[in-house]
Parts: sequence; structure tokens; C-alpha cells
Amino acid sequence: MNSVLRSDDTPGLRSRIKAVGYAAKHRFSHLKPFEFEREAAGEKEVEIRVLYCGVCHSDIHQVKNEWHNTVYPCMPGHEVIGRVTRAGSGVRRHKVGDLVGVGCMIDSCGQCEPCKAGNENYCESPNGFLATYNGPMIPAEQARGNANIYGRDNTFGGYSNVLVVKENFLLKIPSALDPETAAPILCAGVTTFSALKRGSVKPGNRVGIVGFGGLGNMGAKLAKAMGAHVTIFTRSEHKADEATQMGFSAIIEDDKKALQASAGSLDFVLSTIPEKHDINPYIGLLKRDSTICVVGCLEPLEPVDNTEVILHRRDITGSLIGSVRETQEVLQFCAEHDVAPDIQVIRVEELNDAYHKVEKGDVRYRYVIDISSLPTVSA
Amino acid sequence: MNSVLRSDDTPGLRSRIKAVGYAAKHRFSHLKPFEFEREAAGEKEVEIRVLYCGVCHSDIHQVKNEWHNTVYPCMPGHEVIGRVTRAGSGVRRHKVGDLVGVGCMIDSCGQCEPCKAGNENYCESPNGFLATYNGPMIPAEQARGNANIYGRDNTFGGYSNVLVVKENFLLKIPSALDPETAAPILCAGVTTFSALKRGSVKPGNRVGIVGFGGLGNMGAKLAKAMGAHVTIFTRSEHKADEATQMGFSAIIEDDKKALQASAGSLDFVLSTIPEKHDINPYIGLLKRDSTICVVGCLEPLEPVDNTEVILHRRDITGSLIGSVRETQEVLQFCAEHDVAPDIQVIRVEELNDAYHKVEKGDVRYRYVIDISSLPTVSA
Repeated sequence: MNSVLRSDDTPGLRSRIKAVGYAAKHRFSHLKPFEFEREAAGEKEVEIRVLYCGVCHSDIHQVKNEWHNTVYPCMPGHEVIGRVTRAGSGVRRHKVGDLVGVGCMIDSCGQCEPCKAGNENYCESPNGFLATYNGPMIPAEQARGNANIYGRDNTFGGYSNVLVVKENFLLKIPSALDPETAAPILCAGVTTFSALKRGSVKPGNRVGIVGFGGLGNMGAKLAKAMGAHVTIFTRSEHKADEATQMGFSAIIEDDKKALQASAGSLDFVLSTIPEKHDINPYIGLLKRDSTICVVGCLEPLEPVDNTEVILHRRDITGSLIGSVRETQEVLQFCAEHDVAPDIQVIRVEELNDAYHKVEKGDVRYRYVIDISSLPTVSA
Repeated sequence: MNSVLRSDDTPGLRSRIKAVGYAAKHRFSHLKPFEFEREAAGEKEVEIRVLYCGVCHSDIHQVKNEWHNTVYPCMPGHEVIGRVTRAGSGVRRHKVGDLVGVGCMIDSCGQCEPCKAGNENYCESPNGFLATYNGPMIPAEQARGNANIYGRDNTFGGYSNVLVVKENFLLKIPSALDPETAAPILCAGVTTFSALKRGSVKPGNRVGIVGFGGLGNMGAKLAKAMGAHVTIFTRSEHKADEATQMGFSAIIEDDKKALQASAGSLDFVLSTIPEKHDINPYIGLLKRDSTICVVGCLEPLEPVDNTEVILHRRDITGSLIGSVRETQEVLQFCAEHDVAPDIQVIRVEELNDAYHKVEKGDVRYRYVIDISSLPTVSA
């Protein structure tokens, strides 16, 4: 990285840490070991040794440049669990040895209305928030007015042995949570939690979860813990069976009879499918004045039949991850309600194979990398 | 009509009134004079002599079977102003001589949750509410379960000299309103009013109105009367000029520079375009957590780019006309705030030509038929 980390102490003059991670050099490349440097923690920053990092479908979109904004080398990872190894002199909220987490953001402008209201995930600076990897979220050259408030065009994420983060963007991991299962809560968890909360999901509600991958698994568990009756919509018979075993209802997405029988029955639908899809079958399942929220798809959806929207005044919305406050809240919620995602811990060498499996929907339900399997930094 | 009007007194045995109107016999036909019979008013029904009837774009969709549910002969008209000429013995709310209105509905099931809550426009009976013309809204043979709670497959609307309506579905016209300008309030008015109210439009808000026809004209005036700053989005330079003269801001819909300058600036957008269209340019104009409501289009919209929805948690919704209560409310609101649509009164012989002009957007801004121009009923 040529640019410097914005900081409260003299930028560019801080010492640098040697680091290693797994990164892709271009959009056709596999992830491979990659050595690099990070700036050491500034006054209000914390350095952490990474223990676990979840594998999110967004990581794959980004590595393959499917959102047309990837800056290479691309080192994903925004479901990061680690331990504090160093804290700047001004750090008050964390201390060496603490188990902490890093989600999708490591900074935001702090000046715009959403930032001031604690909604950093909707930061309206020209670059949006500073994403944990491939950040700024909208790279400088693509941002309106060409401004770049973060002084950089890339960040390296949690597929690495060390991270340096502003203390305000660091999450405390409740002691009731296992470090490896806590990881997916930092993106899959907060993304579904924030959407369910804004959807005012409450006890007795009937909630539909479309897609049963990492987000669907988390969203279903959270909705159930909120007291809702949860129905999973999936194209996989295996996943439908597994959902039933987990205590959810399940409908295969092309079972027209079952869909018809559920027409107008749901209080909220959360679509977690991470690519272009057709939400029309699910709009028809909503009660009047109810909402479908699409969190997974950052591209055009199939055309929506507005008749079904108008005739029952249904709403279509979206939601982007969650704020720092919501992330801390969902960690606490999971600890209190004994909610944990189903995960498969892998070694870093298995990562490229894991990507293929995620794309095929062949993961139960989130891969989490054991970061101790990374090669050590060369001397 | 072979079937009978559902009523509180003995159905099918009531005397019949000779009536005349303008109707289309099939989807390629012009509207022509058409003689028919209506059942006389039952105990809780009112007979009215029609004075004026607005021409809604829906009338044209229905005549041309563009919604694939038209029952012929098709006699449109759901912006009806008339005077009470007869009242059933059980009628309490209206008396002979009263100036009254009939909107889009003349009955509903009265049993479902929306009906009980006073939202008859979202009646969940198998046929929906009973539409003033081409009602039941979903004809019996197309309704789920094939039930038909209204005992009929068609109704004849306000392009006629006489209407018979349940008193509960009849609106009182405030004395401050002129009968001819009051007509469009009964559909164009309540449709936009209901959507603006649900959108919580309040003083100081910035509201966008997409499309400047009958609904757009009404919606803009209502939003302004609610205290909002209104911007009209239209493809017509003439209409943009006229909108400016009326005290609104205006942007030509392909003026990308102006659209870009308005990005993220609106609290609410109401799209009134009565056919398939692209709402993407307007989604980008919304502030975070703000809504675009599409009221005019009963078909699939162009694909929506979900990125713009997710990144600012924007909402897309629809809205269907308004309830009886809301219709009375908007009539009162117009009387109190001196809101009146811009209309052009036509004779019934001009109707087919008027249809062509509405389709070309060549109307300022609503045609209203002077029903006294109808031929008299033959002896």
C-alpha cells in the first residue's frame, strides 16, 4: 500500500508491522499467501492477533470483481475474531488480552448525519464507510466528486495474522460465545439482525427466510430467538430437511402448491440470496402492509410485478450490514439467547476449495478459517 | 346483466330502472351509447342522477383489456358526482337533493380484517372489493377458489345517467367544492392522498412526483397543501413549464445533470406513471430510509438495481386508491385547503377522442364528462 492510514498521531511516520495473509492478485487468481506491511497502532488504535475469520459470499464476489470495484491485491475477511496484542496510549475501551471482533467496517467519516446518528454503515461520505477489506467501499476514483477522505484505495481484511483497527470499530466478544462461532455474527449475524429489527419482527410473527446459506442460517436462528415462527425457502431438498431438523418449517422454492398455500401469511420476509433473483414468489406470501427485505443482492433484481405490491400495499426494502452499535447488540443477543451459527472450521489451504463449495451452496453453513494455519511471516 | 345486486332486501325482485351510458362492446371497440337496466335502490341504497364523471387512465386500460380481466360490455367511470334522487327506507346518511360522490368502490365483503378496519380498498374476499365498474375487481372466474361473493361478474360505472349505490360507499361533497372539479378527487385525489399520508409527508419535506397527468397534478397539489416542496418529473418540456408556473419545481426526466444534482435529496417520491416504467432514476433521489411509492402501474416494473436500495436502505412500495374514510377525508382536505385539480369538461361525444389524448399525455390535466350531454333513454 502506498497510502497511509488516517490517524490521530503523525500519519506515515508510524512504524510498520510485517504481516501475512491470503490474497488474490487478479480476478482469475486463486488466493495465495501474501506478505505485506501494516502501520502499527496509532494512539486510539488497537492491534489484534487474528484467531478466526469467517468466509462470506461477499468475499468471493469481491475476489472475482463481480461488483466491478475490486482493488487488487484483494485480501478479504470481515468476520474477524482476535485477541488484543497492543493498544495505543489513548485506547480506553479495550486492553491487551481481550477477545475482540472486527466486522465489515474499520472507520467512517464521523461527520455525516448517519455517522452522527450511529449509523456508520450508511456513511454518506464520498467513499462511504471504510470497509475492512477493499475499502473505501466505493474506491476513490469511483466516488462522486473524486474525493477520497481515507487517503487510500484499498484495505486488507481478516484473512491475515494481524489487524490494526480504531478502537471505536472494535467489538467486545461476550465470554459466553466461542471465538470460532462468534465470527459469522460479525457480518451474517448483524446483517440479518439489523433487517429483522427494522422489520419489527416480534413474538408470534411468521417470518420467511429465502435462501439457507450463511446468512439464512443466522437469520433463521435470530428470528426464532425473537419469538417468530420461521419458514425457510430453499431450492435444496437436503437443506429443507436440515432446516426441518433444526426446528424450522421449510418449503422448496419451486413447490408452487406449498407457496400458494402460504399466500398472504407472512409478516416479514428476508431474502438472503447473494445474487440476482426473483422475489415475486415471496411478495405474494406477505400479509398486507408487510415487507420483504433483500440483503444479499447488490445488483438488479428480476422485474417485480407491481400488481402484487399495490393490491396489498406491500413493501420492498433492502438493508446493508449493521452499525457498530447493532453489531455489539447482536453479539450480546446471541450470548443471551444461546444463538450460534452452524460452522465448519477450515485451514487456510482449504480456502480456494471452500470458495467453490460456497458458490455451489455446499457448506453447512459457514466456513470459518483457523488463522493459526497461516504460514508464518518470513524473517 | 344476468346476476343480481346483493342487497338487504329481497334480491332479484326489485324493480328495474332504464339507464343509458357509454360502453365498449369489445377491446377494439369505441365507446358508444348503450342502454341497460339497473336494479332500483334497495333499503340501504341510494339512487343518484349523475352530473359529472372524470376520465381516469384506468378507464382506458380496462376498455382495452390491458389488465386482462375486462368483462364486456365495459362501461367505465369511477370519479362520479351526482345528486341523490331516491333513498331506500333504511338510508340515514344521505337525503334526496344531496350532492354526492362515488369513487372506485361500491361494496366490499365487510368481513375480512381490512374491511373491519375500514380499509375496504384492500378487501381480502376472493373477489376483492366490488369495483364501481368491471367489478368484482378480480372477476369471479379468476378469483381464487372460484368463489363469487357479489353474485355478478360486471358492474357499470359512471359514464351513465344513473347509479345505485350502498349508502356506506357514497361520499358527501363539501359545499366549498365545485361539482365538476370535485370529480377527480374521488380517484386521482384519494389515490395520491392515501399514498402521501402513508408516506408521512409533512411540512418542509421534499416530495418528488413522477408523471404529471391526472394523478400527478392532484398529487402535487395535495403534497404542496401538506406543506411539502414539490418537484415534478416529466418527459414533457411543456408540462415542466406548466408545473413551474403552478409553483412547483420541475425536472425533465432525461436531464441527467439535474437528476444527479438532486441525488439523495427527497423525503418521498410518488410515481403516478400508468404503465410499465423504470423507477431506478428516482430511487437514487431518495434520502436514506425514504420511500418511493408506485400507484399507477399494475404490471411488472423495469428491473430495480438493488444496490441503490440497499446502500441507503430505501423502500419501494405501492398503494391502491384509498378507503371510503380516506376519500371523505381528502374531499374535506381539498375544501379546507382550496385544492382543486385542473380539468377540461367535455361532452360525451368527445370521449373517444379524449381517450387518444390521454394516451398521448395531451390533457390538462383531467377530462371530466358533462353527463347531461348523454342521449336520453329511449321510451
